[in-house]
Amino acid sequence: MFISFEGIDGSGKSTQARRFAEHLRQSGREVVLTREPGGSPGAEDIRRLLVEGDPGRWSAETELLLFTAARRDHLERLIEPALAVGRVVVSDRFADSTRVYQGATRGNLRPLVDALHGQMSGREPDLTFVIDLAPSDALRRGLARRSGEDRFEDMGLAFQERLREGFAALIDQYPDRCVRVDGRGSEADVAARVCAAWEARARQPRTPA
Amino acid sequence: MFISFEGIDGSGKSTQARRFAEHLRQSGREVVLTREPGGSPGAEDIRRLLVEGDPGRWSAETELLLFTAARRDHLERLIEPALAVGRVVVSDRFADSTRVYQGATRGNLRPLVDALHGQMSGREPDLTFVIDLAPSDALRRGLARRSGEDRFEDMGLAFQERLREGFAALIDQYPDRCVRVDGRGSEADVAARVCAAWEARARQPRTPA
Repeated sequence: MFISFEGIDGSGKSTQARRFAEHLRQSGREVVLTREPGGSPGAEDIRRLLVEGDPGRWSAETELLLFTAARRDHLERLIEPALAVGRVVVSDRFADSTRVYQGATRGNLRPLVDALHGQMSGREPDLTFVIDLAPSDALRRGLARRSGEDRFEDMGLAFQERLREGFAALIDQYPDRCVRVDGRGSEADVAARVCAAWEARARQPRTPA
Repeated sequence: MFISFEGIDGSGKSTQARRFAEHLRQSGREVVLTREPGGSPGAEDIRRLLVEGDPGRWSAETELLLFTAARRDHLERLIEPALAVGRVVVSDRFADSTRVYQGATRGNLRPLVDALHGQMSGREPDLTFVIDLAPSDALRRGLARRSGEDRFEDMGLAFQERLREGFAALIDQYPDRCVRVDGRGSEADVAARVCAAWEARARQPRTPA
């Protein structure tokens, strides 16, 4: 089982991914909690190139290649081996982030994003929680967190608005895989919504792929 | 005019690229001398990921994505702007190195190398000098140079033999663009051969592309 958390910057997805991984562990599952970009030593090295520096450091195309390189390493070195021995993998972001960030908002590269992802892995999560929050709320949380990894947050509120629209379009495109979760309220409120969506899905018959 | 120098590690191509750039400058041309991986600030950052560390640091596929990212940045930020204002660009390595290293020798990725190169730029040099030298001679030169950038040299003599065959196959595939230059003898000997090939080509009618 491979589960990803997606959402705009400051939406709370990292916190929720961590809480959900803990929830699964308490129910007896072996869980690997990871993140993108990064998650393996090589991918974390690539991450530093992506998240640090000026917003204009890379073109959208170069950035896409770097994200794809990091994802390939992450899949080879961490995700696929963990899935192969029956662990649950919970990832804070995966390919959907690239679809939304590079594809929908930075130069209409979506066809190239999908082509590269297909050529280099094609792996999709079994389930994706999209934590949805108004960009004005999310941006405040993101900016409150100054970590030196602010290249995307620095792109501003209008950019975050486009990201939110991109994630909404993704839910429409992959309704069987993507579940919207209301990101408003306390961490515990949102965590309860994630768990409720998880339980509802466990009871629901799966549509064959 | 975009000219690249190719060859196995220690073949002398970097020295010859520098000497040839100087030769062109003395004949009054504006020349940009550059190298791959690297050549622009971002691509040099990616270069460090590629040339340092253990031979098994990256899979062939991840490495290919990193080379392609570095090349895209190099093209956007240095090569294309220089060509656009009429400068001659001389590059120590370009896409042919990726074809030979990743394509011919590390997992039969050549179709993927060509697909990525086409998707991300498609730019080819107008002229490529392949400095040809026996791997045993070339490896001695390379290893004599210990620079911390020895990840490829560390792969050994058999690997360099496969590289040399890969470059030979490339000359067969692109006979109009690629010129073999005997890499034996002194720097001045080889430089004289490069200049002779350049002069011969200038006198020769070009085959329309």
